[in-house]
Amino acid sequence: MRRWNGWGEESTSMELPGSGRAFLAEQIGPGLALPDASLDSVLARVPASRLAEHPLVLREPMDRLLHARGQSLADWLAMREGEFGRFPDGVAYPQSAEQIRELLRHAQATDCLLIPYGGGTSVAGHINPPAAGKPVLTVSLAHMNRLLELDEESLVATFGPGANGPQVESQLRARGYTLGHFPQSWELSTLGGWVASRSSGQQSLRYGRIEQLFAGGTLETFAGPLDIPTFPASSAGPDLRELVLGSEGRFGILSSVKVRVSRLAEQERFYVVFLPSWEQGLAAIRDLAQARVQLSMLRLSNAVETRTQLTLAGHPGQIAWLERYLKWRGAGEGKCMLTFGVTGSRAQNAASLKLARRLLKAFGGVFTGTLLGRKWEASRFRSPYLRETLWQAGYVVDTLETATDWSNVDNLMRRIEASLRDGLAAEGERVHVFTHLSHVYGEGSSIYTTYVFRPAASYAATLERWRRLKDAASRTIVDNRGTISHQHGVGRDHAPYLAVEKGELGMATLRALASHFDPAGRLNPGSLLQD
Amino acid sequence: MRRWNGWGEESTSMELPGSGRAFLAEQIGPGLALPDASLDSVLARVPASRLAEHPLVLREPMDRLLHARGQSLADWLAMREGEFGRFPDGVAYPQSAEQIRELLRHAQATDCLLIPYGGGTSVAGHINPPAAGKPVLTVSLAHMNRLLELDEESLVATFGPGANGPQVESQLRARGYTLGHFPQSWELSTLGGWVASRSSGQQSLRYGRIEQLFAGGTLETFAGPLDIPTFPASSAGPDLRELVLGSEGRFGILSSVKVRVSRLAEQERFYVVFLPSWEQGLAAIRDLAQARVQLSMLRLSNAVETRTQLTLAGHPGQIAWLERYLKWRGAGEGKCMLTFGVTGSRAQNAASLKLARRLLKAFGGVFTGTLLGRKWEASRFRSPYLRETLWQAGYVVDTLETATDWSNVDNLMRRIEASLRDGLAAEGERVHVFTHLSHVYGEGSSIYTTYVFRPAASYAATLERWRRLKDAASRTIVDNRGTISHQHGVGRDHAPYLAVEKGELGMATLRALASHFDPAGRLNPGSLLQD
Repeated sequence: MRRWNGWGEESTSMELPGSGRAFLAEQIGPGLALPDASLDSVLARVPASRLAEHPLVLREPMDRLLHARGQSLADWLAMREGEFGRFPDGVAYPQSAEQIRELLRHAQATDCLLIPYGGGTSVAGHINPPAAGKPVLTVSLAHMNRLLELDEESLVATFGPGANGPQVESQLRARGYTLGHFPQSWELSTLGGWVASRSSGQQSLRYGRIEQLFAGGTLETFAGPLDIPTFPASSAGPDLRELVLGSEGRFGILSSVKVRVSRLAEQERFYVVFLPSWEQGLAAIRDLAQARVQLSMLRLSNAVETRTQLTLAGHPGQIAWLERYLKWRGAGEGKCMLTFGVTGSRAQNAASLKLARRLLKAFGGVFTGTLLGRKWEASRFRSPYLRETLWQAGYVVDTLETATDWSNVDNLMRRIEASLRDGLAAEGERVHVFTHLSHVYGEGSSIYTTYVFRPAASYAATLERWRRLKDAASRTIVDNRGTISHQHGVGRDHAPYLAVEKGELGMATLRALASHFDPAGRLNPGSLLQD
Repeated sequence: MRRWNGWGEESTSMELPGSGRAFLAEQIGPGLALPDASLDSVLARVPASRLAEHPLVLREPMDRLLHARGQSLADWLAMREGEFGRFPDGVAYPQSAEQIRELLRHAQATDCLLIPYGGGTSVAGHINPPAAGKPVLTVSLAHMNRLLELDEESLVATFGPGANGPQVESQLRARGYTLGHFPQSWELSTLGGWVASRSSGQQSLRYGRIEQLFAGGTLETFAGPLDIPTFPASSAGPDLRELVLGSEGRFGILSSVKVRVSRLAEQERFYVVFLPSWEQGLAAIRDLAQARVQLSMLRLSNAVETRTQLTLAGHPGQIAWLERYLKWRGAGEGKCMLTFGVTGSRAQNAASLKLARRLLKAFGGVFTGTLLGRKWEASRFRSPYLRETLWQAGYVVDTLETATDWSNVDNLMRRIEASLRDGLAAEGERVHVFTHLSHVYGEGSSIYTTYVFRPAASYAATLERWRRLKDAASRTIVDNRGTISHQHGVGRDHAPYLAVEKGELGMATLRALASHFDPAGRLNPGSLLQD
């Protein structure tokens, strides 16, 4: 069963070894747990639905509760406390484009709002009902999850928009293909959600971001269907796919999604290299990206993340042995862990590995082979479960991310980390902050920062702590040439910061598009564009 | 001096060897020349300007004549006959964003239309003044051609929008960089024009299309400036760059363009391989693209293009020797020439070459080394001059192009070729047609078709022949899942066919955007969207 008040499957959890607990206590003090609300108490507080009866609309409290919140930290605190705020008034599970169109008509006829819903994994407040106003119908695409068509010559697959990561991959793998899109939320998030929020997967270096994978499909809008045919490339005017990508449910609801797939690769390997310092690591991954070495993933943890990960991994004896070896090879205090993958034919991988090792060696990299790479692979979708683990141990963890040009990466990372590290100084609380770079490009890199702090004495005060940290970091990002999001999207949480990067005319343009597709403003108001 | 009535520099021309002339005569009959108008006679017919005096506006007949027509075949015939139709009423050469804004204000104040002008190389009628209506001011960006900023860490360069290919490359090369964008029009076309028309260069396989190279910049619009900052990637809502790309001067005028550049590669090589048949060639380049072999260009000529190119190359003795050799190795009648390039470090290129040769060998490819590749390289920007050469010999040549998914490439190519080959059958005229595929993608390929026919007895009748051929091919493209353009853009010539691929709502969306940025419809009316 999926957790009603947290991430993922109830049967799955991560261990926090004793050494990890001690490490956190040393960094920010002993943990402090807040009491969780029970499901029954929350269910009892779901108010009556304001929606009329309709064969496609479910109004049961449990359906509405399970679609009320995403996975942002604000959502998490609300769910754990049992203070959900607004619930949708109903949930519909359309099974076809025609049923989606019927729901659009129904919304118009009954004057309600629609919130398109994929996997409910948003960490930026994409699917939360607005605080007040008209009745809300959440439209879950979960039942439209099939592989509908596969053009094996052109490597184009047509899916229902609600297919989640495992559904996408299992249907493709059965025929020898992969989409290769693996965001950390992969187990739960959906193809339609990836498109609507401009998602990026861990192996975007090989497969591209969802922008490169999304080949066409149909968006059902209040102004009619937007059908986008597939072309490998086109110079026939502005690309309409780019209006759908990142539209976050404001312009319409996807009823089918065509994606570019790949044949399953002959071989895939992940390796770990330790660099002696952050500066050398940074220069190395920039060079790898700019030299177009064919890797399928690349990730560089800064020194604090490296130390934190090695400590939280447990097995202190083995880690101590590893650290002695690394120190002897020149990667001691301040070392940074770099993980990279090669995916392709054996011959391609051998060539890429050779190029990568040669380049990394020039920066003092100590190659440790595939052992730690396999560990990364095995736990690649486990990080979101860490929030549950740390919560039980009395800590709050959140992540945020941006991307910026290489000339600004180090500066921006340091400023973001400082804004978080010092963010609770006024109340004498420490924040443990660490960062990795992944999703590298010739022009720059994403910056992915994790921060851990202690809950306050109440949920309200804890939320207030988070708000202060999140706002400080978000301001730092947009004031320092970072995008407000590289992969999480805008939602309601990032909407206040969007205007800095889009500019006045850019914001007016997005609003004009929203009015064009949805004149009455029924679709997901408040997400992407503030109301 | 640049030709006033044709392509390129007057001092540059291509030779048509005797064997080539004989070949064409055999294919479609002896050439038939039409008389060219003189420059003086045309200049004498430039009417008085309807524009008011303004310090930025030149109203001299010669300026207006040189900016009246692009390089489509309709433009060509008009220029050779001396029947230019409409001339712009003036030409402005702004030197700054502020001067562009001043011209926007001036257009509003004096109720005139603006046509943004880069290199005047459009082959789809992008820069032609509309047939009737308000006075027209052509805005040439030619004086805004400088490299303004270079971020060597992030590999981002800021240029004036009017920098043409040689200006872009020479300013970058002086510092060790390249943009790597080489459309066939490179000698004359400009960065701003590439962005506005979604151009693609011969080495897009390595450097990407202009969509991948365009990182940001400023579009001056009637609704204010649209400033787009650079990010390596972003999930912060729809990507505003994509509205500028392909906007064809309808939304605004670029005042600066930021592009992603590359360090100059250590080594670059072009190779030629002959495949025994079209089917084998097609399968080979699809596999090369889908296996992500790191090539920098890839082009496959069909059998007729191969034969035509070998014949037009001259040196019949050497070619005969080559053909005997190829036949002995299994590539005889029906053989197809494949050209590919590798660009990168020596180690990367060696690895890619090995992978490519191994794959091509499996399809019966006969490798001929770099000799013909060097020939391709030496004449890579010469093809547009061929129109002049053939015109002198009494033939008309035009090209058209599309892109489609792999499963449709062969079908679409055959249909396009048939529509052209049989297009003048009613008047008993033959058309010589041949095709190459270049710009390959995992999903599909561009299809680039050249057709040669004889002029009729008059210019009007010749234009009518072209119209019939162009319309037949364009209908064939859009009715058979091709995009109306992969690299030439829409302009006025392709605008009637655009709705098939954009759909009703797509067209309405583009119109809504045009009204949003330019409520009075002053910017390049008729291009992209029909009026």
